[in-house]
Amino acid sequence: MQQPIAVLDSGVGGLTVVKEVMRQLPREKIIYFGDTARTPYGPRPADEVTRFTRQIVDYLIQFRPKMIVIACNTATAVALEDIRSRVAIPVVGVIHPGARAANGRTQTGIVGVIGTEGTIRSGAYEYALKQLSPSLEVISLACPKFVPLVEQGNFRSPETYEAVRSSLAPLKQRRLDTLILGCTHYPFLADTISEVMGREVALISSNDETAREISTILHDRNKLARNEDSPVHQFFCSGEPRMFKTIAQQWLGEQIELTPVVWQVPKIG
Amino acid sequence: MQQPIAVLDSGVGGLTVVKEVMRQLPREKIIYFGDTARTPYGPRPADEVTRFTRQIVDYLIQFRPKMIVIACNTATAVALEDIRSRVAIPVVGVIHPGARAANGRTQTGIVGVIGTEGTIRSGAYEYALKQLSPSLEVISLACPKFVPLVEQGNFRSPETYEAVRSSLAPLKQRRLDTLILGCTHYPFLADTISEVMGREVALISSNDETAREISTILHDRNKLARNEDSPVHQFFCSGEPRMFKTIAQQWLGEQIELTPVVWQVPKIG
Repeated sequence: MQQPIAVLDSGVGGLTVVKEVMRQLPREKIIYFGDTARTPYGPRPADEVTRFTRQIVDYLIQFRPKMIVIACNTATAVALEDIRSRVAIPVVGVIHPGARAANGRTQTGIVGVIGTEGTIRSGAYEYALKQLSPSLEVISLACPKFVPLVEQGNFRSPETYEAVRSSLAPLKQRRLDTLILGCTHYPFLADTISEVMGREVALISSNDETAREISTILHDRNKLARNEDSPVHQFFCSGEPRMFKTIAQQWLGEQIELTPVVWQVPKIG
Repeated sequence: MQQPIAVLDSGVGGLTVVKEVMRQLPREKIIYFGDTARTPYGPRPADEVTRFTRQIVDYLIQFRPKMIVIACNTATAVALEDIRSRVAIPVVGVIHPGARAANGRTQTGIVGVIGTEGTIRSGAYEYALKQLSPSLEVISLACPKFVPLVEQGNFRSPETYEAVRSSLAPLKQRRLDTLILGCTHYPFLADTISEVMGREVALISSNDETAREISTILHDRNKLARNEDSPVHQFFCSGEPRMFKTIAQQWLGEQIELTPVVWQVPKIG
């Protein structure tokens, strides 16, 4: 039996990564966990996000995945190294792939990063970028207005344009040539962001880049799926299943198999 | 002491990969071997190329590299799996990174590949692409006129434009949206190729993509260099050293340390 790739997220945002993996690696079986009962992770303390992430990994590991993908910027920022130290299989987050792509793309050496307040506060992108190239200049900006707009499906209205324009104004005066969309929700706003920033600024989407790195690492480890059949993916969510299923099927363009999971939420401390 | 990344090529073409690694991973120490005495590999039989590649790997392994990069399309096409089976460290070629990038980029599902006759005849790109996504349509085309133009430094003349235009004519009628430059020499002609193919066709350069994958794999294996100092790279070539040194220093924009190597060319059989 084929070993799956396990993908986890605080909710539905990680489905943008799943869609890219399905497109770039159509032979791979995916199991996905969306922690919709406890979304969003952004405002939670780091130790709580780490605890939730561990709990999901413990759940997914029973399916003997060959890789774990943390498809959430907040969870990657605070829990990636913890999870890497706890499991024997590769663990991929969404921050390093975006950082690596931006580092490869920039010519001016000035890279912008936009994300939720939690992600920007963690400094994780800046750290990842400077680990690669210490001389990079990194300009980080939290864009708290963007996720609510995406969750309302409000991608192209005048209100959205105005929110994007005013949020990104601080970046417009800088000589950055590359901008990382450091949140799984932001690719939905890519057209508007590109319009505001100008075509000469390359936008880096974590979703594409993470799918690429999954492929690279599985190839390096001789773990790419070889079967010819279309795999059947499995989805789990901790919250209300109907809404999750509707969103997932609409976004992925196919029927999904969904299993609701009722968490025994562990006591703090 | 820092373990280096070992890069090998039939000659100077692999320096385009080195330059990208230096740019994207400025902390990494590189050792490079250019087999200039026996270049080009393109027209040689596969078993000979494999034997030469093994010999270079045996030579480089004494420096305890943490990774081997086969920065030559022909050697990658015929010897990658052989070398992977012989050493315990990761081995990266230039074909899979390009294939993976193209697979991620294409929207139409039609990908073009141009390369030397040897590379195209091997079918290695087509195989790598279909391994990832069986439904991709791959259009391969050998462009034997390109390497001589590059070796003459003839990048932008009317003669070059005409050679590129006539060579690529068979691709112009096809609906490809992504074109892999499947030879380390071709990035020098990228502007002309883009002019001929049109801006809507994305060009994939193995050099950028290979540097990205090196970074991804070293990160996955916890092997990225952590030191702050600028590393001193080392270069080796089997042929005339003066010409190699001139080209390398011009291309890399810095002085290099070069050691000529006199091969005991092994007898065939």
